[in-house]
Amino acid sequence: MKNIKELNDKELFTLSEDIRQKIISTVSLNGGHLSSNLGVVELTIAIHKAFDLPKDKVIFDVSHQTYTHKILTGREEDFTTLRQFGGISGFSNPNESEYDLFSIGHSSTAVSLAIGQAIRNKQLNIEGNIIAVVGDASATNGLAIEALNYLGAHPELKVIIIINDNDMSVSKNVGAVARTFNKIRIRREKSFIYKITPRCLHGFIDKMKNSMKGAIYKKNLFDSFGIKYFPGIDGHNFKELDKYLSFAKKYSKSIILHVKTKKGKGYKYAEDDTIGTWHHVGPFDIETGQFIHQETIEPVGKYLGDTLIEEVEKNHNVMVVNAAMTLGNSLISFQEKCPSHFIDVGIAEENAVTIASSIASKELIPVVFIYSTFLQRAYDQILHDVARCNKHVIFCIDRSGIVSNDGSTHQGIFDISYLSPIPNMMIIAPSCVENAQEALKYALTCDHPVAIRYPKYLPSKKISCFEPLKWIVELPLSDVNIITYGTDVEELKETLKDLNVGLINALFIKPIDVNILHQIANSKKIIIYEQANDIAGLFDLINKYYASLNIKVNLKHIALSNTYLTEGNVEELKKASNISIDDVIREVK
Amino acid sequence: MKNIKELNDKELFTLSEDIRQKIISTVSLNGGHLSSNLGVVELTIAIHKAFDLPKDKVIFDVSHQTYTHKILTGREEDFTTLRQFGGISGFSNPNESEYDLFSIGHSSTAVSLAIGQAIRNKQLNIEGNIIAVVGDASATNGLAIEALNYLGAHPELKVIIIINDNDMSVSKNVGAVARTFNKIRIRREKSFIYKITPRCLHGFIDKMKNSMKGAIYKKNLFDSFGIKYFPGIDGHNFKELDKYLSFAKKYSKSIILHVKTKKGKGYKYAEDDTIGTWHHVGPFDIETGQFIHQETIEPVGKYLGDTLIEEVEKNHNVMVVNAAMTLGNSLISFQEKCPSHFIDVGIAEENAVTIASSIASKELIPVVFIYSTFLQRAYDQILHDVARCNKHVIFCIDRSGIVSNDGSTHQGIFDISYLSPIPNMMIIAPSCVENAQEALKYALTCDHPVAIRYPKYLPSKKISCFEPLKWIVELPLSDVNIITYGTDVEELKETLKDLNVGLINALFIKPIDVNILHQIANSKKIIIYEQANDIAGLFDLINKYYASLNIKVNLKHIALSNTYLTEGNVEELKKASNISIDDVIREVK
Repeated sequence: MKNIKELNDKELFTLSEDIRQKIISTVSLNGGHLSSNLGVVELTIAIHKAFDLPKDKVIFDVSHQTYTHKILTGREEDFTTLRQFGGISGFSNPNESEYDLFSIGHSSTAVSLAIGQAIRNKQLNIEGNIIAVVGDASATNGLAIEALNYLGAHPELKVIIIINDNDMSVSKNVGAVARTFNKIRIRREKSFIYKITPRCLHGFIDKMKNSMKGAIYKKNLFDSFGIKYFPGIDGHNFKELDKYLSFAKKYSKSIILHVKTKKGKGYKYAEDDTIGTWHHVGPFDIETGQFIHQETIEPVGKYLGDTLIEEVEKNHNVMVVNAAMTLGNSLISFQEKCPSHFIDVGIAEENAVTIASSIASKELIPVVFIYSTFLQRAYDQILHDVARCNKHVIFCIDRSGIVSNDGSTHQGIFDISYLSPIPNMMIIAPSCVENAQEALKYALTCDHPVAIRYPKYLPSKKISCFEPLKWIVELPLSDVNIITYGTDVEELKETLKDLNVGLINALFIKPIDVNILHQIANSKKIIIYEQANDIAGLFDLINKYYASLNIKVNLKHIALSNTYLTEGNVEELKKASNISIDDVIREVK
Repeated sequence: MKNIKELNDKELFTLSEDIRQKIISTVSLNGGHLSSNLGVVELTIAIHKAFDLPKDKVIFDVSHQTYTHKILTGREEDFTTLRQFGGISGFSNPNESEYDLFSIGHSSTAVSLAIGQAIRNKQLNIEGNIIAVVGDASATNGLAIEALNYLGAHPELKVIIIINDNDMSVSKNVGAVARTFNKIRIRREKSFIYKITPRCLHGFIDKMKNSMKGAIYKKNLFDSFGIKYFPGIDGHNFKELDKYLSFAKKYSKSIILHVKTKKGKGYKYAEDDTIGTWHHVGPFDIETGQFIHQETIEPVGKYLGDTLIEEVEKNHNVMVVNAAMTLGNSLISFQEKCPSHFIDVGIAEENAVTIASSIASKELIPVVFIYSTFLQRAYDQILHDVARCNKHVIFCIDRSGIVSNDGSTHQGIFDISYLSPIPNMMIIAPSCVENAQEALKYALTCDHPVAIRYPKYLPSKKISCFEPLKWIVELPLSDVNIITYGTDVEELKETLKDLNVGLINALFIKPIDVNILHQIANSKKIIIYEQANDIAGLFDLINKYYASLNIKVNLKHIALSNTYLTEGNVEELKKASNISIDDVIREVK
């Protein structure tokens, strides 16, 4: 392949079409982030052309939109292994390439990371540009704004910030800044003012006009930090991109380029998507746009949304709070049916939780839907604003446990660890959708914070009954007893049914059901099986309880060791971590 | 007392002077936040006069500046018990008064809380204004900006935001927004343009001029959210305050009033303070401005700063990162001597940690200084950006353990709970300043994240030696052995020396020293004594280790139960929580 810097416009166009087809065909087989990657094909190529990577450094925010970047940096051949166990990550990954600076997966870190690199370059006298590519919605997250504020006050640091504005973010963008974005359009109409004023005043009027233009364009968040700001750049026009990127490269200070792109560009179904269906997809048929694995069951979140619709119809006392993941949390239907009970704060988990803490009262119960991994952002708000004040806020924590294919950044394996030490917090882990709905109904009757944590899907057939604060004996207690919860209960119940092993469904992780613990205290062995980080999980709470009474028991823990996970699906990762059902059976025998 | 609404300007002035003297005299005896409270006397009175509290609701951000509010709302008599065990809290507290909506202590939550109240009012058809009083520095924290962005997009919600701009925050304000603040001055100079233009154009020119003025004033963060914004209001002028507050009360939409106040106003020493010495003080002599308890020892942070100054002089490889607490973290001296190695990001803990994660490399080691309670804000950044990528970032966590007098919001009792489950994270708890310095020097040689957690003061005399990864036997092992760490080691060593009890100093909380655990496995009793939350602390790690090998031991845990703490000093709170030295001795016997 010719060096990208030598390609003419026609060749660049051909390259972009080739890459686009490669992305569509690979994602159609492996699943992945589609729309965002199709939107930045030209922008990524233009960055590679204008800058001297990897001496110049580009940091993609969240980094789910780096497929073109990966293809351009020696990973074209392996690209077919995208998101597979042992394959190419769906996010940037320094282990794959020196062109990937950081492993990233959470939103809005890119400007801070770029500042860190600029500080490092300055401190070590290293030359080179630092480019941060940030989505329009990520740019309204608190962390990104903190970083812009810092950068604006430090003119000695140079960072090139590219706002990739596709007007969509994950689903429809929210917030005042997003509204301002929509107003930014470069108008170049002929002025009529010249006609009515004497010529000697034209210079003055020009100056005035620029100020006015300033007042329009600059009434914009990005201009309030004192960083040079260029709006309205066409993100699919190589000439225009090259002009601005080349200017930014030579310019001595930080600069913000506001680039307009079209999410899903080049693939009809993704282009027409207005709710985010094509943001993150499973395998699909390219011709028809039909998804291959039509899910026959609904996600847990949908069931919970339905429960809350009923609650609104009956009592009007519920407010659902969501952080830019209406589709991911399966709340589309709730939003449509109960719009006045639905709050979407954008990618702003901290704001979501603090607003919820304020709403909570006898008359109104906030229910916050956030993925396990993203709720980490609101840790202080949970501890300080909600639990410390013992507010009745319900957390519906989706994507808990091991998460397929998104790798280390999106695992839901820490929620129990970070929630269980928090005073006043109750934690429930349902094992079927009916359980989940019962848990939610019960949580509505509480007067303290409750976390209900679940994976995207749970069995739709009823696994066990639900009784407040009680664990359920799923298989009769025996010499060897297994305590587990959530997603693994169904399979264990089936697998162990002829092995004379007791199985306990620990629906309530905090507080624990001490009655059952006393019943099984004389077991030969108690196995605690968790699809979660091994510190500060259910095992520790049980172990602590027995120790507090000096009851000697033989406890075995099967859980993830204190480490992060890689790419792969749930079964692959469980096997690789020695926490598969086979590992449980081995321990039983 | 006459109703505040009926007071004339002279009476208001007298009231403000009385309150000011009361604040000065009480804080001179009990300690507390001085400068910020003296700065908002008139503003608070004006809010009480203009609005109908508590039907209208005022939320003070952080709420350390609510002394005037407390005095005005029935707590004048009890005000002398400020910050004492069982007395009036230094922060707002709903248990004290219906005029205090929330218990708050962390920065930048007020706008989110106000939004929650506005949503609640709307949902329940309740009338009344919601006022959020936010410091200038708090307003640049990510959470506050997330909230402003939401509010700007929701014109149906009305919140009155008062920016209390004293140009100082805790110490000197940082960031681009702060710089912009300083530019905002209302100039009303006579235009000369009229003279050179025909009269028929004057209307047009006026319009142009307004746009220009817009371009100047509006090049400001607060105006980018589409909320009506008034800058430059004198925060010590009752007439001016009343004019704007009355307008805001009647105005139908959200509004931002940018009020200029003088921190420390009315007390000379506090007025002249430029580094924040008078922000939060101990008892002092009013006449001389001398502090009563002149500390004879330096805070731990000062020793660590000195160690890092040496490191910079030798290796130039350290970057200190700090979030608006240069004085609190005792880094003034480091900042002066190593300015190019010092980063202050303002009240932006998330940004601090992500920048640090980016700087970390073979050549540069970031050392992040943040209080235990404030580091909670950066939980996701520690987990996702630092530890997941196994970055060599050192956290110097000040104000760990029980913190005197600031109440539930400022306790450092959760850091071990939230850090110990994080993979790759090492946790060290030094028990004397020399230990702390040795720990820091050792941390500099590591290649993974290290947290060093310590209270403000530790014994300056050497308590024990430091050996990487080793626990120290302070008193010879015996039938009964106590494991503890940090601040309590010195006193226990002294108290227990004749009781034939083993004392182990668990300098390393993670990883634990399993060799010693094997040595004491046959003890009659092992007591683990922690000045910390009882879940996910040292006890759980030890208990888990023994359980993993099925070693039966008799463990006793003396720690804070899973709850929050109230006001009081360390000794009072330890006693009330049954974790005093006496409780340990009782358990030994």
